[in-house]
Amino acid sequence: MREVAILGIGQTKIEERWEKSLRELAGDAVLGALNDAGINHVDSIFVGNMMSGSANRQQHLGAYIADWVGQRFSEGLRVEAACSSGAAAFRSALMAVASGEVDTAVAVGVEKMTDSPTAEITAQLATAADADWEVDQGVSFVALNALIMRRYMYEYNWKKEDFAPFSINAHANGAHNPYARFQEPITEKAYARAPMIADPINLLDASPMGDGAAAAILVPAEALRRSGGRVIKVLGSAAATDTIAIHDRTVPLWLTAAEKSARQAYAQARIGPEDIDLFELHDAFTIMSALSLEACGFAERGQGPRLALDGEITPKGRIPIATRGGLKARGHPVGATGMYQIVEVVQQLRGEAGATQVEDARIGMTQNIGGSGSNIIIHILGVE
Amino acid sequence: MREVAILGIGQTKIEERWEKSLRELAGDAVLGALNDAGINHVDSIFVGNMMSGSANRQQHLGAYIADWVGQRFSEGLRVEAACSSGAAAFRSALMAVASGEVDTAVAVGVEKMTDSPTAEITAQLATAADADWEVDQGVSFVALNALIMRRYMYEYNWKKEDFAPFSINAHANGAHNPYARFQEPITEKAYARAPMIADPINLLDASPMGDGAAAAILVPAEALRRSGGRVIKVLGSAAATDTIAIHDRTVPLWLTAAEKSARQAYAQARIGPEDIDLFELHDAFTIMSALSLEACGFAERGQGPRLALDGEITPKGRIPIATRGGLKARGHPVGATGMYQIVEVVQQLRGEAGATQVEDARIGMTQNIGGSGSNIIIHILGVE
Repeated sequence: MREVAILGIGQTKIEERWEKSLRELAGDAVLGALNDAGINHVDSIFVGNMMSGSANRQQHLGAYIADWVGQRFSEGLRVEAACSSGAAAFRSALMAVASGEVDTAVAVGVEKMTDSPTAEITAQLATAADADWEVDQGVSFVALNALIMRRYMYEYNWKKEDFAPFSINAHANGAHNPYARFQEPITEKAYARAPMIADPINLLDASPMGDGAAAAILVPAEALRRSGGRVIKVLGSAAATDTIAIHDRTVPLWLTAAEKSARQAYAQARIGPEDIDLFELHDAFTIMSALSLEACGFAERGQGPRLALDGEITPKGRIPIATRGGLKARGHPVGATGMYQIVEVVQQLRGEAGATQVEDARIGMTQNIGGSGSNIIIHILGVE
Repeated sequence: MREVAILGIGQTKIEERWEKSLRELAGDAVLGALNDAGINHVDSIFVGNMMSGSANRQQHLGAYIADWVGQRFSEGLRVEAACSSGAAAFRSALMAVASGEVDTAVAVGVEKMTDSPTAEITAQLATAADADWEVDQGVSFVALNALIMRRYMYEYNWKKEDFAPFSINAHANGAHNPYARFQEPITEKAYARAPMIADPINLLDASPMGDGAAAAILVPAEALRRSGGRVIKVLGSAAATDTIAIHDRTVPLWLTAAEKSARQAYAQARIGPEDIDLFELHDAFTIMSALSLEACGFAERGQGPRLALDGEITPKGRIPIATRGGLKARGHPVGATGMYQIVEVVQQLRGEAGATQVEDARIGMTQNIGGSGSNIIIHILGVE
């Protein structure tokens, strides 16, 4: 298996991009990454996207985007794993290059959500849950997460305001990211006063949707070494599933798929959580930040919020998360999110993260979640 | 890059399966393949599917099916490339095993089309074409193929009835396949009298939709050799795209993506078209059979129908196609079709194809098309 490195990155600002089509958004990210990499050809294009078939009435994004970015005749396919589609596309591109089958691949995550009525988007997001056993009962994603958060607060004796630091950190960091949807810091008071969506989840616990695309170019590490370039390698990559319906899990407060994929990725990279300099986790809801920190080995069971309350999740803390705003402030265009995480870790490892730069960052990790913990994909990147 | 072999296959009969859900269909194919392989665990599940997000209001099929088939916690993702989603899933599984990242993978194609109104399915199928530049003009897939067929008849001086042998061969073979949707032979007279859908395409030029699933288990060839099992290897795998809108192509009567992917697959396998014993091509419409035979090197440009008229496409001819009924008679549950092709070639190479067995079949090829030739994926399988 060949070692794989990241040669270039590209991203678009997340917002309501009514003036740009799906293909233009994806194209801007891919062309940005090609430009950053200094190349003009790729063998294969892997597109991470969840809902273009309904939200944009356009599927077949592999061929669609390949042609648009001047890569007509290259291989092109779309990878879907609900909100973890971005990381799934990256992992597919990684395996293609690692196998030797492909020499240069681009992984691009794209989602254009704001052209459709919100009710339709909410219904489409719910297709990541179980149609028969969850959605038919009228349960949306925020409701599922609210059930988990309520139970967690009860089991481990946390108050609602103990989750505020997750949101405050994300917004503080997003304020310095020109690609973030929200670039304003928030206060504890704002969190306390935020309107409730599904008790106990309020507006500042939940990540916003948006339109956006992010991309990365993958090449064999050896080729990059020969050319004398800076080598940011993929040290570990792993994916695991769990039951799609939450009620089927023995322990609904533990992200087993995160534990399994993190362990596997650590083993590949021959490191442990103590070696991770920053962690772009899937903070779709503040409760998911807590559960992710625990399952990936950064906090004891039930103690995720403690890290946040102690300031250890900020860029200067022990395990910085959401360093560019995370899903909460940078935004969560679902199929693109996993690729934004990759792009942001590369920015940190290059030392290009500006005001939220993690000092001497050498190893960064991403964690992208599909469904309510039903599919979790971990990547560990490191500077050689 | 590790060599990869196929350890087991499974499939369901294609028909209107109103009594089975999407997950049951996929599950039946996967469990059949696991049973055929004699194993009960896989590391990764790759699901080929085009339209479950709208037709079944269920996405996230990787985790969804993994849990259903008893593979909770394994990796699971969905691959979409319109009607070539099945082959795209197979190719993704192939690269995962070839890379060494995964030791056992299952690729399963599944589509459940008949629960939705036909108008909705037709609209969803059209998401494989260009939403802005084709579908907005009201052009459906059958209309696009009718335009191509009409032009082809004009350019190369063929009559409508010259395409009949493609359909007659497919139905003659499907009559012997218990998994085929249509198991009755048809006559020239029936073809001549078939109702027109989009002139010159009539009902017997076009493949039927349906509900179905097919699966294969992929493992490293070396592991199979050590166990002394029969080794059916993947000798070649290649994918290429073309413009998604037909009017963007310089030569609309030539499948450039088929030519490119076939050439690349032949080079990998170190063989040429003359070495192929059977060819499961993407006969969604009879015109696509002609174009595919030409672009893949079996006929001169414009001469595809000649092979059919000369009887060379039957199981006893020079290049047997649709040996188990093809898309035309076996049926075309879009995201599953590419996996049915793989399963059928394996049946032929094992000598298990019964009345339509190709004598001494050692090397078989599959060709799965997404859109109107916008994405073409070729696999060459061979007995070691």
